[in-house]
Amino acid sequence: MTDLAAYMTGVGEAARRAATLMAAAPTAAKDHALQALARRLREAGPALAEANARDLAGARELDAPLLDRLKLNDKILATVAEGCKQIAAMPDPIGEITGVKRRPTGIGVGHMRVPLGVFGMIYESRPNVTIEAASLAIKSGNACILRGGSEALHSNLALAALVGDSLEEAGLPRDAVQLINTTDRAAVGLLIAMPAFVDVIIPRGGKGLIERISREARVPVIKHLDGNCHSYVDAEVDLDLAVAVVDNAKTQKYSPCNATESLLVHAARAADFLPRIGMVFAAKGVEMRGCERALALLDAVPRDLLKPATPEDWDTEYLAPIISIKVVDDLDEAIAHINRHGSHHTDAILTTNHVHAMRFLREVDSASVMVNASTRFADGFEYGLGAEIGISTDKFHARGPVGLEGLTSMKWVVLGQGEIRR
Amino acid sequence: MTDLAAYMTGVGEAARRAATLMAAAPTAAKDHALQALARRLREAGPALAEANARDLAGARELDAPLLDRLKLNDKILATVAEGCKQIAAMPDPIGEITGVKRRPTGIGVGHMRVPLGVFGMIYESRPNVTIEAASLAIKSGNACILRGGSEALHSNLALAALVGDSLEEAGLPRDAVQLINTTDRAAVGLLIAMPAFVDVIIPRGGKGLIERISREARVPVIKHLDGNCHSYVDAEVDLDLAVAVVDNAKTQKYSPCNATESLLVHAARAADFLPRIGMVFAAKGVEMRGCERALALLDAVPRDLLKPATPEDWDTEYLAPIISIKVVDDLDEAIAHINRHGSHHTDAILTTNHVHAMRFLREVDSASVMVNASTRFADGFEYGLGAEIGISTDKFHARGPVGLEGLTSMKWVVLGQGEIRR
Repeated sequence: MTDLAAYMTGVGEAARRAATLMAAAPTAAKDHALQALARRLREAGPALAEANARDLAGARELDAPLLDRLKLNDKILATVAEGCKQIAAMPDPIGEITGVKRRPTGIGVGHMRVPLGVFGMIYESRPNVTIEAASLAIKSGNACILRGGSEALHSNLALAALVGDSLEEAGLPRDAVQLINTTDRAAVGLLIAMPAFVDVIIPRGGKGLIERISREARVPVIKHLDGNCHSYVDAEVDLDLAVAVVDNAKTQKYSPCNATESLLVHAARAADFLPRIGMVFAAKGVEMRGCERALALLDAVPRDLLKPATPEDWDTEYLAPIISIKVVDDLDEAIAHINRHGSHHTDAILTTNHVHAMRFLREVDSASVMVNASTRFADGFEYGLGAEIGISTDKFHARGPVGLEGLTSMKWVVLGQGEIRR
Repeated sequence: MTDLAAYMTGVGEAARRAATLMAAAPTAAKDHALQALARRLREAGPALAEANARDLAGARELDAPLLDRLKLNDKILATVAEGCKQIAAMPDPIGEITGVKRRPTGIGVGHMRVPLGVFGMIYESRPNVTIEAASLAIKSGNACILRGGSEALHSNLALAALVGDSLEEAGLPRDAVQLINTTDRAAVGLLIAMPAFVDVIIPRGGKGLIERISREARVPVIKHLDGNCHSYVDAEVDLDLAVAVVDNAKTQKYSPCNATESLLVHAARAADFLPRIGMVFAAKGVEMRGCERALALLDAVPRDLLKPATPEDWDTEYLAPIISIKVVDDLDEAIAHINRHGSHHTDAILTTNHVHAMRFLREVDSASVMVNASTRFADGFEYGLGAEIGISTDKFHARGPVGLEGLTSMKWVVLGQGEIRR
């Protein structure tokens, strides 16, 4: 344990030193490192396959989906290499000076975008996250400390070595991206409690992991716990559009955090809308857990797909072919229900009424609020961020999908000509 | 204690309910409340004087400066009333939609500025902070829970009553601004650990108070601990300008957090600059604690004002007529010294060299970085924010002086026409 503490302090100090150099690194050097990384990822196929095979051999008792996420094949490598090239092609967010206004005293006051410094990333099996986090760190001028899943250690070490070589090739500090080289679980506890060396922690994984990190971290955490997303069908609505969007929001993919988990329908249109969406869901085997009024309108749905909703259903993220359905009396009830039971992630209204659309946008207290669009769009790539390190349901700092800008901070710059304060 | 916990939960629930209404409140109603508050503050002189007299009578054993800060005279009331009118005249930050860009899928994606929700403000003797916090909360559409110093309770209750009456007059919820009506210290511990009801804590007071709150809070804290600010005199510099600015940065006022506490001078100009600034400081009785090279150049300064600097001096915020002085060999040493010993609050370079100015702006990791201006400018009013609720030395969320915008958050808005994800 003393050795581990010393090791983590060493990692932290090296990250802080590297962060200072990365903050001042020229855009060309950062882009060079990203291009080199893309090239090395394509060239390293056999070596990476060997490291990955060791992890897979050691993880044979894992569930099939977990084993699948651990696998590092040519297609995944090509995708992350392409991601590096795309990030290299994006504008450098660092150093941008905005909004400089002249004050009556003569000074000019504005903002400069700068890196956060050092972020710690804690994640589970998928080794490609190593490259995603490293590439975002490099472009945003941060240093990062990566803690991947113990079952992926060999793959992650091999990937981190490619990152280090690419940084060196570009004349940047190798320690800008460090992977914690131990499977000791106590390393996580140390990483999240080093405010002198780490500016923010980004956890990606199960709810238990994220709750523990939020509770114990001594530095800010960019996180989301749940994606209990809602779609609300208003009284004034294009029914065809609403059916298509709600279907997509629930069924296009069941596992993502931005899938709709709860459907609210205005009482005035419930009799028109619910039987139609009910048949769509039924055809796809989606179980419907409804309030009494909803169930009464879903009587054409096969019995085995219908259940009365319990109070817990309104608070549940299923990540499965299940949806909760509630008939509400008006927009007020819909907004109140979402703000009370939702997870402040992503919620959408389907409406043709402008006043209702604007009220929903303003009053629903979520990271993403949508009008007439599928909640599945809440994603860094779909929003045009180019890359995503996570989605935040906190209100502080970055909210919603977090890309390069979420890894930066704005400091004030004051440009004077010798002004003094009177 | 059970009673106190129940009381605090009640306050929290009421604040959360009020926050929902405040978030949707029309600009006209918020401005009406602020104008009404300004009027009521001017009219309430005698009643406020009586409440304040009770506090002063109960605090007779306090130090003179503390008693002074507790005093609520006509001049202070006129100033805070004027502040309310100024905030009423500012644009409403809430509801602003910016940067909507059309994506290839057809959706429009942008940001909407919304209130944070509920902030808790913990402060010491000065009762005018009650009005400053209340007025910023009202304009920014937040609810707030105020916890003032126990010695100012009667004054604060009288002021909070005026705020409540003003909110009611404007048709807004009285509970949008609540003052904790107990001197029980345990209330602070409860307030900072109610994430369900409080979104952010803003402490204003001594370092001990802020450290304790940062350590124990279960919600984000907007804070600064120290203002160990630096002025660095570069090798290429207008000496007259540098003398005037450094003099102002140190001596215009000794107690504010943005006063310069440490002077760094490039070795090439130390022999020209130090004797001049030394005589300016000496004439004002400022004690100089220098490195060896600095002391050798300050030999014309009276002995009782000269001291060798100890290692602790480089880390010390004096808030007094004392300054630490160090001769450095180059810009790199200056930047490294500031990033290591400073408090990331405000630091300035005096230079005529553009490259040095830009490197200083980019590489000094502080909330405010300045070229050729007095560090004393780091202030919400001087920056044009109209009002200031505090200064943050954290990198997350609001950094530097925090005004109305620092009390808001940006959520994503997605404007669609029925788009679904493929």
